[in-house]
Amino acid sequence: MDILIKNTTIVTMSNENEIIQDGFVVISGDRIAYVGEAEPEGFSYDRIIDGRNKAVLPGLMNMHTHSPMVLVRGYADDMCLQDWLFNKIFPVEAQLAPEDVYWGSTYAIMEMLRSGITSFADMYFYVNEVARAVNLSGMRACLCTGIQNGDKIGRPEKNSYLAENRRLYDEWNGRADGRISVYMGPHSVYMCEPELLYYISDLAHQLGTGIHIHVSETIKENLDCIKRYGKSPVALLDEIGLLGPKTIAAHCVHVSEEDMNILKDRGVSVAYNPTSNLKLGSGLAPIKRLLQKGINLALGTDGASSNNNLNIFEEMHLAALISKGAELDSTCVDAFEAVSMATTNGAKALGKIIMENREFNTIDSEQAIYNIKRIAARLGR
Amino acid sequence: MDILIKNTTIVTMSNENEIIQDGFVVISGDRIAYVGEAEPEGFSYDRIIDGRNKAVLPGLMNMHTHSPMVLVRGYADDMCLQDWLFNKIFPVEAQLAPEDVYWGSTYAIMEMLRSGITSFADMYFYVNEVARAVNLSGMRACLCTGIQNGDKIGRPEKNSYLAENRRLYDEWNGRADGRISVYMGPHSVYMCEPELLYYISDLAHQLGTGIHIHVSETIKENLDCIKRYGKSPVALLDEIGLLGPKTIAAHCVHVSEEDMNILKDRGVSVAYNPTSNLKLGSGLAPIKRLLQKGINLALGTDGASSNNNLNIFEEMHLAALISKGAELDSTCVDAFEAVSMATTNGAKALGKIIMENREFNTIDSEQAIYNIKRIAARLGR
Repeated sequence: MDILIKNTTIVTMSNENEIIQDGFVVISGDRIAYVGEAEPEGFSYDRIIDGRNKAVLPGLMNMHTHSPMVLVRGYADDMCLQDWLFNKIFPVEAQLAPEDVYWGSTYAIMEMLRSGITSFADMYFYVNEVARAVNLSGMRACLCTGIQNGDKIGRPEKNSYLAENRRLYDEWNGRADGRISVYMGPHSVYMCEPELLYYISDLAHQLGTGIHIHVSETIKENLDCIKRYGKSPVALLDEIGLLGPKTIAAHCVHVSEEDMNILKDRGVSVAYNPTSNLKLGSGLAPIKRLLQKGINLALGTDGASSNNNLNIFEEMHLAALISKGAELDSTCVDAFEAVSMATTNGAKALGKIIMENREFNTIDSEQAIYNIKRIAARLGR
Repeated sequence: MDILIKNTTIVTMSNENEIIQDGFVVISGDRIAYVGEAEPEGFSYDRIIDGRNKAVLPGLMNMHTHSPMVLVRGYADDMCLQDWLFNKIFPVEAQLAPEDVYWGSTYAIMEMLRSGITSFADMYFYVNEVARAVNLSGMRACLCTGIQNGDKIGRPEKNSYLAENRRLYDEWNGRADGRISVYMGPHSVYMCEPELLYYISDLAHQLGTGIHIHVSETIKENLDCIKRYGKSPVALLDEIGLLGPKTIAAHCVHVSEEDMNILKDRGVSVAYNPTSNLKLGSGLAPIKRLLQKGINLALGTDGASSNNNLNIFEEMHLAALISKGAELDSTCVDAFEAVSMATTNGAKALGKIIMENREFNTIDSEQAIYNIKRIAARLGR
């Protein structure tokens, strides 16, 4: 089936910031077969769309969300984070059945498609249900289970969340005509012990898949990590070998110059969630510095309950505005950078576009094991 | 003519944060004649609106804008302020004819009405044309000419901008069935000499009208003012007697504790313009402190060229979010405060709702004249 979009403005998002006026786009099956100024030939169209007074741009990518959380949208606002999470969100999430997760994710997918999102990176539980929803929807998604310590601390091989993530990988990675990829989802340095993080990282390397993790979202996370391990979350994760070009580090609100250098060296992609960082009082991420360092910055909505929607246009809008005000620099994050974050940088994060720094140094496994032992010794294990 | 809105959610914005479900609103002529839960009696309706799945709230108030600047919307973005203003905006504005201002303002009014704005406070030139547009539209507006030094420095009585503002007052204040009020519009401390500011302030007191002025929008404005006058813009304006409960101080991004105390003591209303302050790299206004001080905070869009639209819902959204992130406090600026800024606080700014602190101290004119002489002496005049 071939579809033609004609007479439209095409924002190609190629490096040259190229805009084609009155152009043509052909979609042939599941591929974009043609983009250009001249009318294409050799196709037979099942559908012709008049794109006059509209613009076509690459699919938007929501690189950090918890899609089923649309179910708790607006459930609690204007509260302090701990109160919000422990007294409102966690208790209601504990009551969700797998079927709820399926319908929540289905709703989220409809909401995302409606505002132009074609791919998303998701972390939740009962993710098999999310995969079912993705499969039916036609969307592209990078899924993982949010892995936390649970009651098997010190025995990563017995961790039930990790086991669920592994099952998810076996059942769904590469499925839905290749639209679904399954990553490993260690929640964060405060929800996962270093041994578990190492085990997850090692498994991801073995499987050749990526990692999706929350990093330095709040000052509290940093302070607790420094107190416990004597280093920042980024430095800790790097010692464990978890940072590489297939790692999506969500948030990175409170990262130091040194942290940023590590993120850059490892080729990590950062998922910036402006609305969530504001709403939850997490802070203002150092976007200007991250961009200056050449770190790949994509955008995310986070869950709808910390947003309160799943609209990457709003995140683009905020990304373009906030740093200008916070840095007192009206040239910071220009329009092309903001749209890149929402489109091509998301594609780079998922390896759909090869990044320049694809040749990366990753820590070797012997060194990582040595580091883990050192950390364990420090913790008295 | 009576209009009934029935079966609707009514956000009354009374102090109790009252929400009426399935309520009724009656508009009789140009007045809201009834708001309540019970079906009203004694009216004869020309029009009945089913408000199911909708909400009715007080008209939104755009307390700082330059409406005709919709004509230069999107003309220049992502530039540094000086470059933007002097190389892009001013040259194109210099070419505007009165008729352009009329059509620009008409367009802006349509845009504002569409997103629920019913009143706006405007500062521009050829404001007679803006008044014509307001008169035809049915909107409520507080208009003024942006007054600057011009070539008659030191002779305020010969200032042509002030003369235009005065003519505007004589022709339009109280006109359009009372929908138009005319304020005095001294642009700012950097565009007006102290003698001119004093002259304007004195005239406003004589006429019993208010003042609309830009205050501490940028760090540069503050530094220049301190260098020249040895004090902040707020302190300078206070010495001149220009601050009172009929003063709308737009921006106030860079105000000190002392400045805020003055604003509070004088009963000044602040028009906060979150999008503009971000887009132009002006900074993050200390909203949490302004609210804690009990200063009346309303919202503005500023001109469309520094926004890029005239939508108070977006300003509410940003007002509710930015301070949470900047202050690392997710309880800061709750929903009721944000909607108050957009509605009742705007009405307070225009004196449509009497503020608690209406009994204010204003500087007496003898003291102001003494202060002006002191400032003039300092400047060697």
